[in-house]
Amino acid sequence: MDQNFNSPLLENAIAELAKLPGIGQKTALRLALHILRQEKGMAHDLGNAIIAMRDNIRYCKRCHNISDSEICPICNDHRRHDKVICVVENVKDVLTIESTHVHQGLYHVLGGLISPLDGISPSDLEIGSLEERVEKERIEEVILALSPTMEGDTTNFYIFRKLSHLPVKVTMLARGLSIGNELEYTDELTLGRSIQNRMPFTDSFNKKN
Amino acid sequence: MDQNFNSPLLENAIAELAKLPGIGQKTALRLALHILRQEKGMAHDLGNAIIAMRDNIRYCKRCHNISDSEICPICNDHRRHDKVICVVENVKDVLTIESTHVHQGLYHVLGGLISPLDGISPSDLEIGSLEERVEKERIEEVILALSPTMEGDTTNFYIFRKLSHLPVKVTMLARGLSIGNELEYTDELTLGRSIQNRMPFTDSFNKKN
Repeated sequence: MDQNFNSPLLENAIAELAKLPGIGQKTALRLALHILRQEKGMAHDLGNAIIAMRDNIRYCKRCHNISDSEICPICNDHRRHDKVICVVENVKDVLTIESTHVHQGLYHVLGGLISPLDGISPSDLEIGSLEERVEKERIEEVILALSPTMEGDTTNFYIFRKLSHLPVKVTMLARGLSIGNELEYTDELTLGRSIQNRMPFTDSFNKKN
Repeated sequence: MDQNFNSPLLENAIAELAKLPGIGQKTALRLALHILRQEKGMAHDLGNAIIAMRDNIRYCKRCHNISDSEICPICNDHRRHDKVICVVENVKDVLTIESTHVHQGLYHVLGGLISPLDGISPSDLEIGSLEERVEKERIEEVILALSPTMEGDTTNFYIFRKLSHLPVKVTMLARGLSIGNELEYTDELTLGRSIQNRMPFTDSFNKKN
């Protein structure tokens, strides 16, 4: 489709919207036309919310989670176990793990995964600060809670090596059958791994932790 | 997912993004996290482009197409046939029809379709101005180029009735088989209509207009 709207204003808004991930030219056009149909206040609220967020957002100095204070409420919660750190890719994963109510310790947000293809190297991530923190705070256990993907495994291995000189236990999330999924629909790789990593039978897995 | 990020800035940006059509809470969160990873300039460019577009965009006084001048370049093009108006739903459809290079006349952008379910009544659309324009400019043909949907057909019928007292020919886009599609994959409604509306054989349909 020819993107000649005779309006640099519209063309510019479409170009900026299309820079967002998962939003192509057609979707950007649809969003722009929607914004044009709304009250002016809606465009101002949206535009200003984006700018204000980017300009003023802060991160917890300790775990790098998003926080409006210097230290985030999770790090400040003295009922939590402060010798166990759960390492996650991003702030979304903190929420996902919190929603399980199983992890009682703190977090460390890496800000991404090592991915040479996307040009993300270990120095772009909060791995140095993790090492420092494990040493300084005398952390007893680091739980690697990264996605079971190529990038996640690479990052797991890199962090494991980085922490190997420290007296800390490094664990990772269990991999195996998804609860509630039929055996026949489990992919072969996961099924094979779950046989290799089979575990002693216990009925505690049916109880809430 | 619990949307408690401990950051009103992030929560507000997510809420505003999620107001856009087709963007839910999860996508809004993904977009917001993407914006946070980019340079500040990117958030400013995006936010300001949205605001500037909404504040300063103008519409052609004659056909209601988007235009940065009082009268759009199509209406101003004296090589076009100014007694034939193609009625379309929105500015995107102007582009789509222009890309066929078949329509030599002008346009009239309604700004939507009649849709009682969405609360859009004829008075919300540029139908009154169409009637006025047909009379004043002594238009000879109005081509209804609306989508073949319930809303499109309702709007077609409403406009047809509105213009019935004027000496203007009202036509609509042909409905039938899509060129290049296999007969067996054409839906039954379209196939049935294309039998009812069968037309004399001519090989001009294989030639460019």
